[in-house]
Amino acid sequence: MSYPFERVLIVGIGLIGGSLALALKQRGLAREVLGVDESPGNLEKAKALGMVDGIFADPCQPALEADLVVLAIPVGAIPAVAWKVASHLREGTILTDVGSVKGSVVKALERALPPGRAIVGGHPIAGRERSGVEAALSDLFQGVKCVLTPTPRTDRGALERIKALWETVGSEVILMTPELHDQIFAAVSHLPHVVAYSLIGALLDLDDGATYVSDFAAGGLKDFTRIAMSHPAMWRDICLLNREELIAMLGRFRKSLDRLEHLIKLGDGAGLYQEFERAKMAREGL
Amino acid sequence: MSYPFERVLIVGIGLIGGSLALALKQRGLAREVLGVDESPGNLEKAKALGMVDGIFADPCQPALEADLVVLAIPVGAIPAVAWKVASHLREGTILTDVGSVKGSVVKALERALPPGRAIVGGHPIAGRERSGVEAALSDLFQGVKCVLTPTPRTDRGALERIKALWETVGSEVILMTPELHDQIFAAVSHLPHVVAYSLIGALLDLDDGATYVSDFAAGGLKDFTRIAMSHPAMWRDICLLNREELIAMLGRFRKSLDRLEHLIKLGDGAGLYQEFERAKMAREGL
Repeated sequence: MSYPFERVLIVGIGLIGGSLALALKQRGLAREVLGVDESPGNLEKAKALGMVDGIFADPCQPALEADLVVLAIPVGAIPAVAWKVASHLREGTILTDVGSVKGSVVKALERALPPGRAIVGGHPIAGRERSGVEAALSDLFQGVKCVLTPTPRTDRGALERIKALWETVGSEVILMTPELHDQIFAAVSHLPHVVAYSLIGALLDLDDGATYVSDFAAGGLKDFTRIAMSHPAMWRDICLLNREELIAMLGRFRKSLDRLEHLIKLGDGAGLYQEFERAKMAREGL
Repeated sequence: MSYPFERVLIVGIGLIGGSLALALKQRGLAREVLGVDESPGNLEKAKALGMVDGIFADPCQPALEADLVVLAIPVGAIPAVAWKVASHLREGTILTDVGSVKGSVVKALERALPPGRAIVGGHPIAGRERSGVEAALSDLFQGVKCVLTPTPRTDRGALERIKALWETVGSEVILMTPELHDQIFAAVSHLPHVVAYSLIGALLDLDDGATYVSDFAAGGLKDFTRIAMSHPAMWRDICLLNREELIAMLGRFRKSLDRLEHLIKLGDGAGLYQEFERAKMAREGL
Protein backbone atom coordinates (compact mmCIF):
# COMPACT_ATOMS: atom_id res chain seq x y z
CA MET A 1 0.00 0.00 0.00
CA SER A 2 1.31 3.44 -0.82
CA TYR A 3 0.88 6.40 1.48
CA PRO A 4 0.96 10.13 0.71
CA PHE A 5 3.64 10.42 3.44
CA GLU A 6 6.06 7.76 4.63
CA ARG A 7 6.94 9.12 8.05
CA VAL A 8 5.24 12.10 9.66
CA LEU A 9 6.81 13.66 12.71
CA ILE A 10 4.39 15.60 14.89
CA VAL A 11 6.10 17.91 17.36
CA GLY A 12 3.72 18.64 20.24
CA ILE A 13 1.16 15.95 21.07
CA GLY A 14 -1.67 18.01 22.57
CA LEU A 15 -5.23 18.44 21.35
CA ILE A 16 -4.25 19.48 17.81
CA GLY A 17 -1.14 17.32 17.37
CA GLY A 18 -2.84 14.27 18.90
CA SER A 19 -5.98 14.72 16.80
CA LEU A 20 -3.89 15.08 13.65
CA ALA A 21 -1.94 11.92 14.52
CA LEU A 22 -5.22 10.00 14.91
CA ALA A 23 -6.66 11.44 11.69
CA LEU A 24 -3.50 10.70 9.65
CA LYS A 25 -3.52 7.08 10.74
CA GLN A 26 -7.27 6.65 10.30
CA ARG A 27 -7.23 8.09 6.78
CA GLY A 28 -4.11 6.21 5.68
CA LEU A 29 -2.18 9.41 5.11
CA ALA A 30 1.07 8.22 6.68
CA ARG A 31 2.82 4.86 6.91
CA GLU A 32 4.26 5.88 10.27
CA VAL A 33 3.47 8.70 12.69
CA LEU A 34 6.12 9.72 15.22
CA GLY A 35 5.46 11.98 18.19
CA VAL A 36 7.67 14.44 20.06
CA ASP A 37 6.64 16.17 23.25
CA GLU A 38 8.47 17.69 26.15
CA SER A 39 6.10 15.93 28.53
CA PRO A 40 6.94 12.21 28.96
CA GLY A 41 3.41 11.74 30.32
CA ASN A 42 1.85 13.04 27.09
CA LEU A 43 4.08 10.81 25.00
CA GLU A 44 3.19 7.72 27.00
CA LYS A 45 -0.51 8.49 26.73
CA ALA A 46 -0.21 9.03 22.97
CA LYS A 47 1.63 5.71 22.61
CA ALA A 48 -0.86 3.88 24.83
CA LEU A 49 -3.79 5.32 22.84
CA GLY A 50 -2.23 4.09 19.59
CA MET A 51 -1.90 7.62 18.23
CA VAL A 52 1.78 7.31 17.34
CA ASP A 53 4.16 4.56 16.33
CA GLY A 54 7.22 6.01 18.01
CA ILE A 55 7.89 8.62 20.68
CA PHE A 56 10.82 10.96 21.21
CA ALA A 57 11.74 13.64 23.73
CA ASP A 58 13.68 15.66 21.14
CA PRO A 59 12.78 16.31 17.49
CA CYS A 60 16.28 16.23 15.98
CA GLN A 61 16.85 12.51 15.57
CA PRO A 62 13.38 11.54 14.25
CA ALA A 63 13.42 14.61 11.96
CA LEU A 64 16.24 12.96 10.00
CA GLU A 65 13.88 10.25 8.72
CA ALA A 66 10.68 12.28 8.27
CA ASP A 67 9.22 13.47 4.97
CA LEU A 68 6.75 15.70 6.81
CA VAL A 69 7.28 17.57 10.09
CA VAL A 70 4.25 19.22 11.72
CA LEU A 71 4.91 21.77 14.45
CA ALA A 72 1.85 21.56 16.73
CA ILE A 73 3.46 23.43 19.61
CA PRO A 74 2.48 26.79 21.14
CA VAL A 75 3.00 29.44 18.47
CA GLY A 76 5.63 31.26 20.53
CA ALA A 77 7.84 28.15 20.57
CA ILE A 78 7.77 27.58 16.79
CA PRO A 79 10.78 29.70 15.74
CA ALA A 80 13.17 28.15 18.29
CA VAL A 81 12.14 24.58 17.42
CA ALA A 82 12.42 25.36 13.70
CA TRP A 83 16.02 26.56 14.19
CA LYS A 84 16.74 23.44 16.22
CA VAL A 85 15.47 20.91 13.64
CA ALA A 86 16.47 22.88 10.51
CA SER A 87 19.79 21.15 9.93
CA HIS A 88 18.25 17.71 10.54
CA LEU A 89 15.69 17.88 7.75
CA ARG A 90 16.42 15.94 4.59
CA GLU A 91 16.15 17.67 1.24
CA GLY A 92 12.52 17.41 0.08
CA THR A 93 11.06 17.30 3.58
CA ILE A 94 8.04 19.52 4.15
CA LEU A 95 7.69 21.53 7.35
CA THR A 96 4.26 22.84 8.32
CA ASP A 97 2.69 24.25 11.46
CA VAL A 98 -0.73 24.84 13.02
CA GLY A 99 -0.07 28.17 14.73
CA SER A 100 -2.73 30.86 15.05
CA VAL A 101 -0.37 33.65 13.95
CA LYS A 102 1.19 33.36 10.51
CA GLY A 103 3.11 36.47 9.36
CA SER A 104 5.97 36.47 11.85
CA VAL A 105 5.90 32.67 12.18
CA VAL A 106 6.21 31.94 8.45
CA LYS A 107 8.98 34.54 8.19
CA ALA A 108 10.85 32.83 11.04
CA LEU A 109 10.45 29.42 9.40
CA GLU A 110 11.69 30.73 6.06
CA ARG A 111 14.74 32.24 7.76
CA ALA A 112 15.49 29.06 9.73
CA LEU A 113 15.30 26.40 7.01
CA PRO A 114 17.99 25.70 4.41
CA PRO A 115 17.01 25.63 0.71
CA GLY A 116 15.29 22.48 -0.52
CA ARG A 117 13.06 22.13 2.54
CA ALA A 118 9.54 23.30 1.81
CA ILE A 119 7.61 25.43 4.25
CA VAL A 120 3.80 25.60 4.31
CA GLY A 121 2.24 27.76 7.03
CA GLY A 122 -1.08 26.41 8.28
CA HIS A 123 -3.85 27.18 10.76
CA PRO A 124 -6.69 24.71 11.26
CA ILE A 125 -9.57 26.57 12.94
CA ALA A 126 -10.31 23.74 15.34
CA GLY A 127 -10.58 23.52 19.08
CA ARG A 128 -12.54 22.16 21.99
CA GLU A 129 -13.26 23.41 25.49
CA ARG A 130 -11.00 20.64 26.77
CA SER A 131 -7.37 20.61 25.75
CA GLY A 132 -4.46 18.19 25.95
CA VAL A 133 -3.79 14.81 24.39
CA GLU A 134 -6.70 13.18 26.26
CA ALA A 135 -9.12 15.49 24.42
CA ALA A 136 -7.79 14.53 20.95
CA LEU A 137 -10.35 13.27 18.42
CA SER A 138 -9.75 11.69 15.02
CA ASP A 139 -12.56 13.82 13.54
CA LEU A 140 -11.56 17.15 15.13
CA PHE A 141 -10.81 18.64 11.69
CA GLN A 142 -13.98 17.35 10.02
CA GLY A 143 -15.96 20.28 8.64
CA VAL A 144 -13.62 22.99 9.92
CA LYS A 145 -11.76 25.57 7.89
CA CYS A 146 -7.99 25.31 7.55
CA VAL A 147 -6.06 28.34 6.34
CA LEU A 148 -2.79 27.75 4.45
CA THR A 149 -0.58 30.77 3.89
CA PRO A 150 1.76 30.35 0.91
CA THR A 151 4.36 33.04 0.14
CA PRO A 152 6.28 33.64 -3.09
CA ARG A 153 8.91 31.23 -1.69
CA THR A 154 6.45 28.37 -1.07
CA ASP A 155 6.99 25.24 -3.17
CA ARG A 156 3.76 24.65 -5.12
CA GLY A 157 4.06 20.86 -5.00
CA ALA A 158 4.44 20.94 -1.21
CA LEU A 159 1.47 23.29 -0.91
CA GLU A 160 -0.69 20.88 -2.94
CA ARG A 161 0.34 17.93 -0.76
CA ILE A 162 -0.49 19.77 2.49
CA LYS A 163 -3.75 21.02 1.01
CA ALA A 164 -4.67 17.42 0.09
CA LEU A 165 -3.74 16.27 3.60
CA TRP A 166 -6.13 18.72 5.29
CA GLU A 167 -8.87 17.99 2.79
CA THR A 168 -8.51 14.27 3.44
CA VAL A 169 -8.99 14.79 7.19
CA GLY A 170 -12.20 16.68 6.38
CA SER A 171 -11.20 20.35 6.37
CA GLU A 172 -12.08 23.08 3.93
CA VAL A 173 -8.76 24.61 2.87
CA ILE A 174 -8.55 28.36 2.25
CA LEU A 175 -5.41 29.95 0.82
CA MET A 176 -4.38 33.49 1.70
CA THR A 177 -1.24 35.47 2.44
CA PRO A 178 0.17 35.30 6.00
CA GLU A 179 -0.54 39.03 6.32
CA LEU A 180 -4.23 38.74 5.41
CA HIS A 181 -4.58 35.81 7.79
CA ASP A 182 -3.20 37.89 10.64
CA GLN A 183 -5.49 40.82 9.85
CA ILE A 184 -8.56 38.61 9.79
CA PHE A 185 -7.68 36.76 12.98
CA ALA A 186 -6.77 39.98 14.78
CA ALA A 187 -10.37 41.00 14.04
CA VAL A 188 -12.37 37.82 14.64
CA SER A 189 -10.31 36.16 17.36
CA HIS A 190 -7.40 38.10 18.89
CA LEU A 191 -9.30 41.35 19.54
CA PRO A 192 -12.33 39.54 21.06
CA HIS A 193 -10.03 37.68 23.43
CA VAL A 194 -8.23 40.83 24.55
CA VAL A 195 -11.60 42.54 25.06
CA ALA A 196 -12.92 39.61 27.11
CA TYR A 197 -9.77 39.59 29.24
CA SER A 198 -10.12 43.36 29.75
CA LEU A 199 -13.72 42.94 30.82
CA ILE A 200 -12.84 40.31 33.40
CA GLY A 201 -9.94 42.50 34.55
CA ALA A 202 -12.33 45.42 35.07
CA LEU A 203 -14.71 43.28 37.14
CA LEU A 204 -11.87 41.88 39.24
CA ASP A 205 -10.78 45.42 40.02
CA LEU A 206 -14.13 46.14 41.69
CA ASP A 207 -13.89 46.09 45.47
CA ASP A 208 -16.55 43.43 45.77
CA GLY A 209 -15.85 42.07 42.31
CA ALA A 210 -15.75 38.42 43.24
CA THR A 211 -19.13 38.49 44.97
CA TYR A 212 -20.97 40.47 42.32
CA VAL A 213 -19.57 38.49 39.47
CA SER A 214 -20.11 35.02 40.85
CA ASP A 215 -23.62 35.76 42.18
CA PHE A 216 -24.98 37.28 39.01
CA ALA A 217 -22.77 35.94 36.22
CA ALA A 218 -25.67 34.14 34.57
CA GLY A 219 -26.85 37.35 32.89
CA GLY A 220 -24.77 37.02 29.74
CA LEU A 221 -21.39 37.37 31.39
CA LYS A 222 -20.66 33.65 31.40
CA ASP A 223 -21.10 33.27 27.64
CA PHE A 224 -19.14 36.41 27.06
CA THR A 225 -16.13 35.42 29.12
CA ARG A 226 -15.94 31.72 28.21
CA ILE A 227 -13.12 32.50 25.78
CA ALA A 228 -11.01 33.75 28.68
CA MET A 229 -10.64 30.10 29.77
CA SER A 230 -8.01 29.53 27.04
CA HIS A 231 -4.35 29.02 27.84
CA PRO A 232 -2.65 32.18 29.15
CA ALA A 233 0.61 31.21 27.42
CA MET A 234 -1.10 30.80 24.06
CA TRP A 235 -2.70 34.23 24.31
CA ARG A 236 0.52 35.83 25.51
CA ASP A 237 2.26 34.43 22.41
CA ILE A 238 -0.52 35.55 20.07
CA CYS A 239 -0.45 39.08 21.51
CA LEU A 240 3.30 39.27 21.06
CA LEU A 241 3.45 37.68 17.60
CA ASN A 242 0.46 39.47 16.07
CA ARG A 243 1.17 42.68 17.93
CA GLU A 244 0.86 45.15 15.06
CA GLU A 245 -2.42 43.89 13.66
CA LEU A 246 -3.85 43.54 17.14
CA ILE A 247 -2.91 47.11 18.05
CA ALA A 248 -4.54 48.31 14.82
CA MET A 249 -7.74 46.39 15.67
CA LEU A 250 -7.69 47.74 19.24
CA GLY A 251 -7.67 51.22 17.69
CA ARG A 252 -10.78 50.37 15.68
CA PHE A 253 -12.44 48.90 18.76
CA ARG A 254 -11.72 52.07 20.76
CA LYS A 255 -13.34 54.19 18.05
CA SER A 256 -16.44 52.04 18.16
CA LEU A 257 -16.49 52.10 21.99
CA ASP A 258 -16.00 55.89 21.95
CA ARG A 259 -18.98 56.26 19.63
CA LEU A 260 -21.28 54.23 21.88
CA GLU A 261 -20.02 55.89 25.05
CA HIS A 262 -20.58 59.31 23.48
CA LEU A 263 -24.20 58.37 22.64
CA ILE A 264 -24.73 57.11 26.20
CA LYS A 265 -23.29 60.31 27.68
CA LEU A 266 -25.48 62.44 25.39
CA GLY A 267 -28.51 60.29 26.23
CA ASP A 268 -29.08 59.86 22.48
CA GLY A 269 -31.69 57.10 22.41
CA ALA A 270 -32.21 57.18 18.64
CA GLY A 271 -28.47 56.92 18.01
CA LEU A 272 -28.12 54.01 20.45
CA TYR A 273 -31.08 52.21 18.90
CA GLN A 274 -29.48 52.54 15.47
CA GLU A 275 -26.13 51.13 16.65
CA PHE A 276 -27.76 48.21 18.47
CA GLU A 277 -30.06 47.42 15.56
CA ARG A 278 -27.12 47.40 13.13
CA ALA A 279 -25.14 45.07 15.43
CA LYS A 280 -28.11 42.74 15.93
CA MET A 281 -28.68 42.45 12.20
CA ALA A 282 -25.00 41.77 11.57
CA ARG A 283 -24.91 39.17 14.35
CA GLU A 284 -27.99 37.42 13.02
CA GLY A 285 -26.19 37.12 9.69
CA LEU A 286 -23.40 35.04 11.23
CA MET B 1 -60.37 28.37 47.81
CA SER B 2 -58.43 31.43 48.88
CA TYR B 3 -55.71 32.98 46.76
CA PRO B 4 -52.81 35.24 47.73
CA PHE B 5 -54.10 37.68 45.08
CA GLU B 6 -57.64 38.07 43.80
CA ARG B 7 -56.99 39.75 40.49
CA VAL B 8 -53.51 40.26 38.99
CA LEU B 9 -53.11 42.60 36.06
CA ILE B 10 -50.02 41.94 33.95
CA VAL B 11 -49.13 44.82 31.65
CA GLY B 12 -47.00 43.51 28.77
CA ILE B 13 -47.58 39.88 27.73
CA GLY B 14 -44.20 38.95 26.31
CA LEU B 15 -41.74 36.31 27.48
CA ILE B 16 -41.63 37.53 31.09
CA GLY B 17 -45.24 38.69 31.46
CA GLY B 18 -46.60 35.58 29.74
CA SER B 19 -44.42 33.24 31.80
CA LEU B 20 -45.50 34.98 35.00
CA ALA B 21 -49.16 34.67 34.00
CA LEU B 22 -48.70 30.92 33.43
CA ALA B 23 -46.79 30.48 36.71
CA LEU B 24 -49.35 32.45 38.76
CA LYS B 25 -52.20 30.31 37.47
CA GLN B 26 -50.30 27.04 37.82
CA ARG B 27 -49.28 27.77 41.42
CA GLY B 28 -52.71 29.06 42.44
CA LEU B 29 -51.33 32.50 43.24
CA ALA B 30 -54.19 34.46 41.67
CA ARG B 31 -57.92 33.84 41.28
CA GLU B 32 -57.86 35.78 38.02
CA VAL B 33 -55.06 36.96 35.73
CA LEU B 34 -55.75 39.81 33.32
CA GLY B 35 -53.46 40.78 30.46
CA VAL B 36 -52.77 44.12 28.79
CA ASP B 37 -50.65 44.50 25.67
CA GLU B 38 -50.44 47.03 22.90
CA SER B 39 -50.33 44.19 20.38
CA PRO B 40 -53.78 42.64 19.77
CA GLY B 41 -52.00 39.59 18.31
CA ASN B 42 -50.11 38.99 21.57
CA LEU B 43 -53.32 39.30 23.57
CA GLU B 44 -55.18 36.84 21.38
CA LYS B 45 -52.32 34.33 21.63
CA ALA B 46 -52.23 34.73 25.42
CA LYS B 47 -55.98 34.18 25.64
CA ALA B 48 -55.88 31.21 23.26
CA LEU B 49 -53.03 29.64 25.27
CA GLY B 50 -55.06 29.98 28.47
CA MET B 51 -52.48 32.30 30.06
CA VAL B 52 -54.98 35.00 30.99
CA ASP B 53 -58.66 35.19 31.88
CA GLY B 54 -59.27 38.59 30.33
CA ILE B 55 -57.51 40.83 27.83
CA PHE B 56 -57.40 44.60 27.50
CA ALA B 57 -55.71 47.06 25.14
CA ASP B 58 -55.37 49.69 27.89
CA PRO B 59 -54.42 49.20 31.55
CA CYS B 60 -56.66 51.87 33.13
CA GLN B 61 -59.98 50.07 33.33
CA PRO B 62 -58.71 46.65 34.52
CA ALA B 63 -56.36 48.41 36.99
CA LEU B 64 -59.44 49.59 38.91
CA GLU B 65 -60.21 46.01 40.00
CA ALA B 66 -56.69 44.65 40.49
CA ASP B 67 -54.98 44.04 43.83
CA LEU B 68 -51.63 43.50 42.07
CA VAL B 69 -50.35 45.21 38.92
CA VAL B 70 -47.15 43.86 37.32
CA LEU B 71 -45.43 46.06 34.75
CA ALA B 72 -43.67 43.60 32.41
CA ILE B 73 -43.07 46.15 29.66
CA PRO B 74 -39.74 47.46 28.31
CA VAL B 75 -38.02 49.32 31.14
CA GLY B 76 -38.10 52.63 29.25
CA ALA B 77 -41.90 52.52 29.08
CA ILE B 78 -42.44 51.93 32.81
CA PRO B 79 -42.59 55.58 34.03
CA ALA B 80 -45.19 56.67 31.45
CA VAL B 81 -47.43 53.65 32.09
CA ALA B 82 -47.11 54.17 35.85
CA TRP B 83 -48.31 57.76 35.52
CA LYS B 84 -51.17 56.58 33.33
CA VAL B 85 -52.51 53.92 35.72
CA ALA B 86 -51.64 55.73 38.96
CA SER B 87 -55.04 57.34 39.52
CA HIS B 88 -56.85 54.06 38.69
CA LEU B 89 -55.25 51.99 41.43
CA ARG B 90 -57.35 51.25 44.50
CA GLU B 91 -55.91 51.89 47.93
CA GLY B 92 -53.97 48.79 49.00
CA THR B 93 -53.07 47.73 45.46
CA ILE B 94 -49.45 46.68 44.97
CA LEU B 95 -47.53 47.77 41.89
CA THR B 96 -44.40 45.87 40.93
CA ASP B 97 -42.22 45.62 37.83
CA VAL B 98 -39.63 43.32 36.24
CA GLY B 99 -37.31 45.95 34.75
CA SER B 100 -33.55 45.44 34.52
CA VAL B 101 -32.78 48.94 35.83
CA LYS B 102 -34.07 49.83 39.29
CA GLY B 103 -32.78 53.18 40.65
CA SER B 104 -34.42 55.59 38.21
CA VAL B 105 -37.41 53.27 37.66
CA VAL B 106 -38.30 52.89 41.34
CA LYS B 107 -37.90 56.66 41.81
CA ALA B 108 -40.30 57.27 38.90
CA LEU B 109 -42.83 54.80 40.33
CA GLU B 110 -42.65 56.43 43.78
CA ARG B 111 -43.24 59.84 42.24
CA ALA B 112 -46.14 58.64 40.10
CA LEU B 113 -48.24 56.74 42.63
CA PRO B 114 -50.50 58.35 45.25
CA PRO B 115 -50.11 57.36 48.93
CA GLY B 116 -51.61 54.01 49.95
CA ARG B 117 -50.46 52.19 46.82
CA ALA B 118 -47.43 50.04 47.55
CA ILE B 119 -44.46 49.90 45.20
CA VAL B 120 -42.04 46.96 45.08
CA GLY B 121 -39.29 47.15 42.45
CA GLY B 122 -38.32 43.76 41.07
CA HIS B 123 -35.96 42.14 38.57
CA PRO B 124 -36.20 38.41 37.88
CA ILE B 125 -32.92 37.32 36.23
CA ALA B 126 -34.66 35.14 33.68
CA GLY B 127 -34.55 34.98 29.93
CA ARG B 128 -34.34 32.75 26.92
CA GLU B 129 -32.79 33.09 23.50
CA ARG B 130 -36.31 33.29 22.09
CA SER B 131 -38.58 36.12 23.17
CA GLY B 132 -42.26 36.98 22.88
CA VAL B 133 -45.40 35.42 24.27
CA GLU B 134 -44.87 32.19 22.26
CA ALA B 135 -41.64 31.59 24.19
CA ALA B 136 -43.34 31.89 27.60
CA LEU B 137 -42.89 28.97 30.01
CA SER B 138 -44.62 28.33 33.33
CA ASP B 139 -41.28 27.31 34.88
CA LEU B 140 -39.18 30.17 33.50
CA PHE B 141 -38.55 31.49 37.02
CA GLN B 142 -37.72 28.12 38.55
CA GLY B 143 -34.23 28.23 40.07
CA VAL B 144 -33.44 31.78 38.97
CA LYS B 145 -32.55 34.73 41.17
CA CYS B 146 -35.06 37.55 41.57
CA VAL B 147 -33.84 40.84 43.00
CA LEU B 148 -36.35 43.00 44.92
CA THR B 149 -35.30 46.55 45.70
CA PRO B 150 -37.14 48.02 48.68
CA THR B 151 -36.60 51.65 49.67
CA PRO B 152 -37.39 53.40 52.96
CA ARG B 153 -40.83 54.11 51.49
CA THR B 154 -41.63 50.48 50.65
CA ASP B 155 -44.51 48.93 52.58
CA ARG B 156 -43.10 45.89 54.44
CA GLY B 157 -46.29 43.86 54.09
CA ALA B 158 -46.34 44.41 50.33
CA LEU B 159 -42.66 43.46 50.11
CA GLU B 160 -43.36 40.19 51.96
CA ARG B 161 -46.25 39.34 49.64
CA ILE B 162 -44.17 39.96 46.47
CA LYS B 163 -41.27 38.01 47.97
CA ALA B 164 -43.60 35.08 48.67
CA LEU B 165 -44.97 35.30 45.11
CA TRP B 166 -41.53 34.96 43.52
CA GLU B 167 -40.52 32.21 45.91
CA THR B 168 -43.70 30.29 45.08
CA VAL B 169 -42.87 30.40 41.35
CA GLY B 170 -39.46 28.94 42.21
CA SER B 171 -37.12 31.94 42.41
CA GLU B 172 -34.48 32.76 44.98
CA VAL B 173 -35.30 36.28 46.20
CA ILE B 174 -32.46 38.66 47.02
CA LEU B 175 -33.13 42.04 48.61
CA MET B 176 -30.89 45.04 47.96
CA THR B 177 -31.19 48.77 47.38
CA PRO B 178 -32.06 49.96 43.87
CA GLU B 179 -28.64 51.67 43.74
CA LEU B 180 -26.67 48.50 44.55
CA HIS B 181 -28.73 46.57 42.01
CA ASP B 182 -27.80 49.07 39.31
CA GLN B 183 -24.10 48.98 40.22
CA ILE B 184 -24.02 45.19 40.07
CA PHE B 185 -25.92 44.94 36.80
CA ALA B 186 -23.85 47.71 35.22
CA ALA B 187 -20.89 45.42 35.92
CA VAL B 188 -22.20 41.95 35.09
CA SER B 189 -24.66 42.73 32.32
CA HIS B 190 -24.85 46.30 31.00
CA LEU B 191 -21.09 46.79 30.48
CA PRO B 192 -20.64 43.38 28.78
CA HIS B 193 -23.45 44.21 26.38
CA VAL B 194 -22.00 47.61 25.48
CA VAL B 195 -18.59 46.00 24.98
CA ALA B 196 -20.07 43.29 22.73
CA TYR B 197 -21.94 45.89 20.70
CA SER B 198 -18.71 47.93 20.39
CA LEU B 199 -16.84 44.88 19.20
CA ILE B 200 -19.38 44.13 16.49
CA GLY B 201 -19.37 47.81 15.55
CA ALA B 202 -15.58 47.71 15.12
CA LEU B 203 -15.78 44.65 12.88
CA LEU B 204 -18.55 46.18 10.78
CA ASP B 205 -16.36 49.23 10.23
CA LEU B 206 -13.70 47.10 8.52
CA ASP B 207 -13.75 47.48 4.75
CA ASP B 208 -14.26 43.78 4.22
CA GLY B 209 -15.87 43.34 7.61
CA ALA B 210 -18.83 41.31 6.50
CA THR B 211 -16.72 38.74 4.67
CA TYR B 212 -14.10 38.29 7.37
CA VAL B 213 -16.60 38.07 10.16
CA SER B 214 -19.00 35.64 8.58
CA ASP B 215 -16.27 33.36 7.20
CA PHE B 216 -14.31 33.02 10.40
CA ALA B 217 -16.78 33.81 13.18
CA ALA B 218 -16.51 30.31 14.65
CA GLY B 219 -13.29 31.20 16.49
CA GLY B 220 -14.90 32.47 19.68
CA LEU B 221 -16.61 35.46 18.14
CA LYS B 222 -20.00 33.80 17.94
CA ASP B 223 -20.16 33.00 21.65
CA PHE B 224 -18.85 36.40 22.47
CA THR B 225 -21.40 38.31 20.43
CA ARG B 226 -24.48 36.18 21.12
CA ILE B 227 -25.64 38.75 23.67
CA ALA B 228 -25.85 41.35 20.89
CA MET B 229 -28.93 39.50 19.61
CA SER B 230 -31.05 41.09 22.37
CA HIS B 231 -33.66 43.73 21.63
CA PRO B 232 -32.12 47.06 20.54
CA ALA B 233 -34.94 48.97 22.29
CA MET B 234 -34.31 47.19 25.57
CA TRP B 235 -30.62 48.01 25.48
CA ARG B 236 -31.25 51.58 24.44
CA ASP B 237 -33.51 51.97 27.50
CA ILE B 238 -31.02 50.31 29.84
CA CYS B 239 -28.18 52.56 28.60
CA LEU B 240 -30.32 55.64 29.15
CA LEU B 241 -31.77 54.62 32.52
CA ASN B 242 -28.59 53.23 34.08
CA ARG B 243 -26.42 55.85 32.41
CA GLU B 244 -24.34 56.92 35.41
CA GLU B 245 -23.39 53.47 36.66
CA LEU B 246 -22.71 52.32 33.12
CA ILE B 247 -20.41 55.28 32.45
CA ALA B 248 -18.56 54.53 35.69
CA MET B 249 -18.13 50.87 34.64
CA LEU B 250 -16.98 51.93 31.17
CA GLY B 251 -14.27 53.95 32.90
CA ARG B 252 -13.11 50.85 34.78
CA PHE B 253 -13.19 48.82 31.57
CA ARG B 254 -11.06 51.41 29.79
CA LYS B 255 -8.45 51.27 32.56
CA SER B 256 -8.28 47.51 32.24
CA LEU B 257 -8.09 47.72 28.42
CA ASP B 258 -5.38 50.40 28.67
CA ARG B 259 -3.33 48.13 30.93
CA LEU B 260 -3.51 45.20 28.51
CA GLU B 261 -2.86 47.38 25.47
CA HIS B 262 0.16 48.91 27.20
CA LEU B 263 1.58 45.43 27.89
CA ILE B 264 0.99 44.44 24.25
CA LYS B 265 2.71 47.59 22.99
CA LEU B 266 5.66 47.01 25.33
CA GLY B 267 5.83 43.35 24.29
CA ASP B 268 5.72 42.44 27.98
CA GLY B 269 5.11 38.68 27.82
CA ALA B 270 5.39 38.12 31.58
CA GLY B 271 2.89 40.89 32.30
CA LEU B 272 0.45 39.55 29.72
CA TYR B 273 0.75 36.03 31.09
CA GLN B 274 -0.03 37.29 34.58
CA GLU B 275 -3.14 39.19 33.43
CA PHE B 276 -4.46 36.23 31.41
CA GLU B 277 -3.76 33.75 34.20
CA ARG B 278 -5.63 35.95 36.70
CA ALA B 279 -8.63 36.22 34.35
CA LYS B 280 -8.64 32.49 33.65
CA MET B 281 -8.63 31.67 37.33
CA ALA B 282 -11.43 34.14 38.02
CA ARG B 283 -13.49 32.79 35.11
CA GLU B 284 -13.03 29.21 36.28
CA GLY B 285 -14.44 30.28 39.62
CA LEU B 286 -17.76 31.31 38.06
